[in-house]
Amino acid sequence: MVQLIHNFFMVTMMTTDVAADFDLKTYLTTKCAEVEAALEQSLPVVYPETIYESMRYSLMAGGKRLRPILCLATCELVGGTVAQAMPTACALEMIHTMSLIHDDLPAMDNDDYRRGKLTNHKIYGDDVAILAGDALLAYAFEFVADRTQNVPPKAILEVIRRLGKAVGAAGLVGGQIVDLASEGKTDTSIETLNFIHMHKTAALLEVSVVAGAVLAEAESETIERLSRYAQNIGLAFQIVDDVLDITSTQEELGKSIGKDVQAQKATYPSIWGLDESKKQAETLVQAAKDELAPFGTLKQPLVAIADFITARTH
Amino acid sequence: MVQLIHNFFMVTMMTTDVAADFDLKTYLTTKCAEVEAALEQSLPVVYPETIYESMRYSLMAGGKRLRPILCLATCELVGGTVAQAMPTACALEMIHTMSLIHDDLPAMDNDDYRRGKLTNHKIYGDDVAILAGDALLAYAFEFVADRTQNVPPKAILEVIRRLGKAVGAAGLVGGQIVDLASEGKTDTSIETLNFIHMHKTAALLEVSVVAGAVLAEAESETIERLSRYAQNIGLAFQIVDDVLDITSTQEELGKSIGKDVQAQKATYPSIWGLDESKKQAETLVQAAKDELAPFGTLKQPLVAIADFITARTH
Repeated sequence: MVQLIHNFFMVTMMTTDVAADFDLKTYLTTKCAEVEAALEQSLPVVYPETIYESMRYSLMAGGKRLRPILCLATCELVGGTVAQAMPTACALEMIHTMSLIHDDLPAMDNDDYRRGKLTNHKIYGDDVAILAGDALLAYAFEFVADRTQNVPPKAILEVIRRLGKAVGAAGLVGGQIVDLASEGKTDTSIETLNFIHMHKTAALLEVSVVAGAVLAEAESETIERLSRYAQNIGLAFQIVDDVLDITSTQEELGKSIGKDVQAQKATYPSIWGLDESKKQAETLVQAAKDELAPFGTLKQPLVAIADFITARTH
Repeated sequence: MVQLIHNFFMVTMMTTDVAADFDLKTYLTTKCAEVEAALEQSLPVVYPETIYESMRYSLMAGGKRLRPILCLATCELVGGTVAQAMPTACALEMIHTMSLIHDDLPAMDNDDYRRGKLTNHKIYGDDVAILAGDALLAYAFEFVADRTQNVPPKAILEVIRRLGKAVGAAGLVGGQIVDLASEGKTDTSIETLNFIHMHKTAALLEVSVVAGAVLAEAESETIERLSRYAQNIGLAFQIVDDVLDITSTQEELGKSIGKDVQAQKATYPSIWGLDESKKQAETLVQAAKDELAPFGTLKQPLVAIADFITARTH
């Protein structure tokens, strides 16, 4: 967490898009603490304790809380409040956590470490890990429906519709399926790689951004603009992830590295090389920031987050 | 399907609770066909085809469609229409199918057959089966939010809240966790066994019944009455399932039998014996039917379904 804020702070120092008086470090510290507190309260441990402990083990394992923060930032950007968006912000992290738990299973990527800790199934077993993922996914929808206040029910339903689409076969799962089918293939096209990551990574980032705007009842033109912002940073995020998989050390990244190479997966660096990959990520980040042009000073967190994606080292 | 309708028809002949002029066979044929048609249309196969085919393989694998039919019947009972309840009815079957796919995985019950066909992971592999379950669960919520028409948004949100609770740690998954923890134990209490099945089986049946009533904006007293009806038939359903696991043949049941004994699972027959188990199931079915006393002739399907639970042979 401290390291993360330090990195964000360094990015602020480097970028010229964010006004000098905007304190990104304070913004992120505040928002991250609010999300952690909301997540902490979202899931009390009751009987049968094992399932709640397993869900909490992964949900409270830290991480950047990027999706919740994007949701809160966008809601405020278009005139809403943190309170209106917080249940959805928590739900996004529950869904993201579910996807990580299931992705790490032996039947999937078979990862032993995640965020520097043993993966869920290494602690609780494959059966409990499968169920913890299912329960987090179901709870995400329940949580949005149950806890969202001062938002018209129609807007809450629209958020639920978009969340479902972003995580299902038309989103994250669809990307994972194509990813699985591409393993060991040496001829994966850039179109297929884009499909994988537009769905596996960008879809959930996109709904994080868009849901915040939907909750604050933004105009459809604004929603489309923010959707393009999110898709661009989503793809950039994945390109940088691929780059980091090659250039980082396990200690820095907090998870097993070099997995892509081991699994003979096509990556952006394997198609474009490292330098071109970095350049493409920068182009996408610039395009993302261009979408934010019409907005006022409240766009600063979204600009800084876009910059952070290409500047991060882990 | 034909065998199922035959069984239902036989039950109609045996029971005295249902008026002689109520044609259960026609009712079930009609409702089941409507559900099948709606499910058929709910999930077109698009790119990436594998995930949609895997989802459809299990979703369209037949079965009793008990949950959707309960939902439609209850919605009509309290003055709603089939059209209002159909998206939720489909979602219930998607959720039920998800739970079966994940339950059959090698990391869980490790079942090779379900409804007389190879289980999902035997056809598509464990990874795709995990993802197909995830996608069905997410799609269920999307489907309710997206497709439900002529119902106040607040009522749709209440259905989503209840669906999430019924399938998550406070419902189905919670029951499965206690079930897993009880395997191989010889001292499982009747309270623990009731907890398992009130959550693993009855919770989803309960929300099937209650969601139909919520969509038709039933009074809270009516919803509570229908909730008790559903919990009683849910527990009775499981007791009869345990009995059938011992007394049926694989051909009749369409799935591997004797699994409970092999897994050293506590069952109602293992605690109460076969005769007492059957008697308890009958008592629960009678209690369920008693809850329906205030309703008019539209209660007939619910009465007949309650009777069917104790009379069925598979």
